[in-house]
Amino acid sequence: MDYFSNYRDHVGVNMERWFKSTIFVSPNMLVGMDCLEPGQVQPPHRHAGRDKLYFVISGSGEFTIGTETRRLDPGELAWAPADTTHAVVNVGDERLTMLIAMAPEPK
Amino acid sequence: MDYFSNYRDHVGVNMERWFKSTIFVSPNMLVGMDCLEPGQVQPPHRHAGRDKLYFVISGSGEFTIGTETRRLDPGELAWAPADTTHAVVNVGDERLTMLIAMAPEPK
Repeated sequence: MDYFSNYRDHVGVNMERWFKSTIFVSPNMLVGMDCLEPGQVQPPHRHAGRDKLYFVISGSGEFTIGTETRRLDPGELAWAPADTTHAVVNVGDERLTMLIAMAPEPK
Repeated sequence: MDYFSNYRDHVGVNMERWFKSTIFVSPNMLVGMDCLEPGQVQPPHRHAGRDKLYFVISGSGEFTIGTETRRLDPGELAWAPADTTHAVVNVGDERLTMLIAMAPEPK
């Protein structure tokens, strides 16, 4: 079991969709990174029975949770409660790098 | 329900113990901040059935998870699996500011 990590070891690019990496995982919670290049989108989706947290480390994104949309910059957070539709668009000109957590673990 | 926040609105000082603030909470997960002034300590403790994540935003801390101890700087993470003893000491000369998540929610 690894108890320690650095988010910088979990940053990457996926031009087909978006980049995601798992840092820690248990049945209770998954912790990882979501990285969107400029213009990339996480289309509206929801996680049955699972809450999702986004913490913006670098870049800027337009986050929609339910019917509310807000632009978030580094240090800001978005919270998608279980079964709530959410979406993210990288509206900036640099990579949008986010620490994420989902609880319980997505199966 | 608030879907958005900024960690800077959840930073503070508690000279008696350490500062903690809840940002988001549901039965699945609690998201918040732990802030330790220089020299402050979270003594060894464990959470029954609950995982805890620490993400260092600013400052430096010495983290012990189980029997492993590591100094972490901004951008580094520590993961205390359920029922695993953990402790944090602010070994730096500035406030140690951490985003934390616990899953499931502590009752």
